[in-house]
Amino acid sequence: MGLIVEVDNVDEDAAVLVPPPNFSMVEDCIFRSSFPTPSNFPFLQTLNLRSVIYLCPEPYPEENLEFLRSQNIRLFQFGIEGKTDVSLPILRDSIMEALKVLIDVRNHPVLIHCKRGKHRTGCLVGCLRKLQNWCLSSVFEEYQRFAGAKSRNGDLTFIDRFDIVSLRQCLYSIIYQYQGYGSKKRRLLYTDENLQKPRLASF
Amino acid sequence: MGLIVEVDNVDEDAAVLVPPPNFSMVEDCIFRSSFPTPSNFPFLQTLNLRSVIYLCPEPYPEENLEFLRSQNIRLFQFGIEGKTDVSLPILRDSIMEALKVLIDVRNHPVLIHCKRGKHRTGCLVGCLRKLQNWCLSSVFEEYQRFAGAKSRNGDLTFIDRFDIVSLRQCLYSIIYQYQGYGSKKRRLLYTDENLQKPRLASF
Repeated sequence: MGLIVEVDNVDEDAAVLVPPPNFSMVEDCIFRSSFPTPSNFPFLQTLNLRSVIYLCPEPYPEENLEFLRSQNIRLFQFGIEGKTDVSLPILRDSIMEALKVLIDVRNHPVLIHCKRGKHRTGCLVGCLRKLQNWCLSSVFEEYQRFAGAKSRNGDLTFIDRFDIVSLRQCLYSIIYQYQGYGSKKRRLLYTDENLQKPRLASF
Repeated sequence: MGLIVEVDNVDEDAAVLVPPPNFSMVEDCIFRSSFPTPSNFPFLQTLNLRSVIYLCPEPYPEENLEFLRSQNIRLFQFGIEGKTDVSLPILRDSIMEALKVLIDVRNHPVLIHCKRGKHRTGCLVGCLRKLQNWCLSSVFEEYQRFAGAKSRNGDLTFIDRFDIVSLRQCLYSIIYQYQGYGSKKRRLLYTDENLQKPRLASF
């Protein structure tokens, strides 16, 4: 052969990365986790985030705000109470608004988080999966994988009843406007066949 | 405005998609799951897979082979016994060979699966995370999220002891050959700073 590729001086002491607990990739450019602390910032930097969707009512800590500013990451906050007796219409409206931000590719890559990445984050991801036509048992399985022993029946009922139809119509319009109809790129919708061409109507 | 975008005839009865149990995205173009059955094939089609890494010694079922053929998906099989008393050197060699296939972007998008997507798949993904410099507690947390009550200490010890250094050097060579040094695309390695430029040596 007479030719080899040789690697030397490989840095074995490269910084160890610490993802936040319950971190996972959800979809292309969509991530989920529990509340990140400064120890997670070097890892988060590797995601090249453009946005964070934060689902708690508490103010975002100053050190986290500073991190977002330094990385030019936009914060979208939807204050959902962490208790189990949260008002259903309020939860529904907040999740719907968060979902609109989540599915807008102009906000990607995006990290969704609440406090533990179980309930509020699980509800939002569950509704996203419904939008993607996942069967309900698979949606629930994923919710439970992250919630573990803390799984709440109320959350599962919420996901089950969440009406995706109006949002789906809205999504189709967004895709048409920003990605072009029939885009081949695998993003939030899996099959082009499910799309109907929007009609331009002028008055 | 005089102009609206209107969506009509949206197909509300679009086929419901059924991911295999324990399905998840691991990284860009890397997925994991339990053993897929024909009910999962429409979902798998949406992933545009180029390869499957199958970690069991049992022959691949004819209907699954037929699906792979129809989608032009390549099968890489590494037969690891499902028992807990699997020989450690054999497990190590199989995981190392599987990891080489896994990190080769020419095989992406790729689905890793064994039977339940817990132990063998969990070991392979765990070793990938070590290669990505994840701290061990995060690697274990992810393993346990999928293994649940079936978590095995033997697997955690295996991941802990798995030597990633030689593979990392090999990976750097692959990246240099196929992606070019210093590629900005976020793939398996998070930071370019950790890379040392390979040296071409001729004899």
